[in-house]
Amino acid sequence: MIVDVHGHYTTAPAQLDAYRGNQLTNLNRPVKGSLKISDDEIHASLQGQLRQLENMGIDKVMYSPRAGGMGHEIGNELVSRYWTETCNDLIARVCSLYPDKFIPVCALPQSPGISPANCAAELERCANMGFVGCNINPDVAGGGQPFTPRLGDPWWNPLWEKLVELDMPGMLHGTSTCDPARHLNGSHYIMVDVMVVYELCSSDIFDRYPTLKLIVPHGGGAAPFQWNRHRALQIGAKHSFEEAVKHLYFDTAIYDGDSFEMLIRKMGVDNVLFATEMFGTAQTVDPHTGQRFDEVGVDFVKQISWLSDEDRTKIFEGNARKVFSRAKF
Amino acid sequence: MIVDVHGHYTTAPAQLDAYRGNQLTNLNRPVKGSLKISDDEIHASLQGQLRQLENMGIDKVMYSPRAGGMGHEIGNELVSRYWTETCNDLIARVCSLYPDKFIPVCALPQSPGISPANCAAELERCANMGFVGCNINPDVAGGGQPFTPRLGDPWWNPLWEKLVELDMPGMLHGTSTCDPARHLNGSHYIMVDVMVVYELCSSDIFDRYPTLKLIVPHGGGAAPFQWNRHRALQIGAKHSFEEAVKHLYFDTAIYDGDSFEMLIRKMGVDNVLFATEMFGTAQTVDPHTGQRFDEVGVDFVKQISWLSDEDRTKIFEGNARKVFSRAKF
Repeated sequence: MIVDVHGHYTTAPAQLDAYRGNQLTNLNRPVKGSLKISDDEIHASLQGQLRQLENMGIDKVMYSPRAGGMGHEIGNELVSRYWTETCNDLIARVCSLYPDKFIPVCALPQSPGISPANCAAELERCANMGFVGCNINPDVAGGGQPFTPRLGDPWWNPLWEKLVELDMPGMLHGTSTCDPARHLNGSHYIMVDVMVVYELCSSDIFDRYPTLKLIVPHGGGAAPFQWNRHRALQIGAKHSFEEAVKHLYFDTAIYDGDSFEMLIRKMGVDNVLFATEMFGTAQTVDPHTGQRFDEVGVDFVKQISWLSDEDRTKIFEGNARKVFSRAKF
Repeated sequence: MIVDVHGHYTTAPAQLDAYRGNQLTNLNRPVKGSLKISDDEIHASLQGQLRQLENMGIDKVMYSPRAGGMGHEIGNELVSRYWTETCNDLIARVCSLYPDKFIPVCALPQSPGISPANCAAELERCANMGFVGCNINPDVAGGGQPFTPRLGDPWWNPLWEKLVELDMPGMLHGTSTCDPARHLNGSHYIMVDVMVVYELCSSDIFDRYPTLKLIVPHGGGAAPFQWNRHRALQIGAKHSFEEAVKHLYFDTAIYDGDSFEMLIRKMGVDNVLFATEMFGTAQTVDPHTGQRFDEVGVDFVKQISWLSDEDRTKIFEGNARKVFSRAKF
């Protein structure tokens, strides 16, 4: 079985953006309103993705709302809550229509300057609907103000406690940025990944929450390539980087066989989860191969000669079962 | 000959920080004041570095003020100018005391919200003193406000024009950050590198300034590892990522043989400049080797079996001569 731990519903029908447009038009008097999308429209929106999954031999996808659209940086806590609930409810519908294919992962109603304690209720609600993980935005104001405390700061504890209680993993994934010098997919997401790896590995978060399960997407940003920079900076710290990083999981949304190898070589077979992030950043066609950048990941894992069959099973399936322990598949 | 294109004067005598302390104590009534450091104190401050360079066989260092101390985010334009001039003057003195070893590279009097046209006079002044390059901070407010325009924005043109006129390269290097969630060496610098590579390669900056020479430090941040992410996002753009990235130079301040190989493999022998960034991030001792992380770079380049002697000469010396064309060595 092949499990893709990182998929976003980027092909949702236009009504979802229309709902958001209406919400932001009324930004200063938030009302929940309702999203009207038929089952047929959901089916139609997924056909391209289903074909692609079939072609690639991917059996299951951890499916969450569009990352760039989580939009925590806009509006107040209530705006974030209404939008997040609406997006999560839509994911729940998708997954109930394709229970054998899509496994729900939720967004959180984060809001700049608001304690992540406000995410507990939505996490409970989603867990009760069968969600198996969540996406956490480590830079809530997206480069704007107020700054978000570092991930090792006790400010985050209520979220870590809830995740531990629910035995639910979190993927640390940026959303939009206010900074005009950053490109959303081209730099901001990777910048957030870079920040996350350093902060998590240099903090005492895993001393305090040893069973917390956190995933860094996009191959960990720069971490495998900057491996010895991390190591050098943590000499003399309580935990070496090599020890600390073993608490983290990394996905393979990096689209490059060379980088797949470096990721697995550095982080180890037990800490890597297969992912494509379809349909997202890499849906263009590579002129060198004639294939889409995001459709070659399965082959990369199969082609790495120094992986055993057991290793491949871990990357494709076993590690995902361990991390997403609430998922039944 | 081995040239290290990335060294900062991090061992300056305490009078330099005292000068800065005094300046910041009087932040709201800027005066230039004077820095009193004797030649003997400068000699003493450099002995460790000179020994290390000798041990490693490094002949020349492009030497600039401490990156983390450029401090553009604090105070107004005048504060930045006084501090920058003081630091550059100190670098000029170091290099005049060791003309065979250190080659001067300047900081710029950047200030949040102020046009980089304000850097022209200091660039002229430094060029006249024999400086051969400059460090440019792409995130002037260090994650704070106001945001800095993206590097492709015409806001930066006066700086690019001056660099082209002087035939002087710029290294794009972050300084301090206001964001509490970022670690200076551990994440902020690398985040800036990530932002820089995407922006430079996706903008039309090299159409407008084809002879502009820009260097991304720290192995390019994440760029070699995220190679196909970049490629995927630029399919359909005027220039492919592979074409665009050939305008940039990358240094080897990455401390890891595996990453050295990936950097050179992806960016090409003609675009990589040898660097150690001594003494900086990586001056701790690697327990695996018993050597400092930042002292093994020369060996890495020598050990990569698929490099020819000509390739090694380019990385150690030839590319630096080309990029730092004002340097006489």
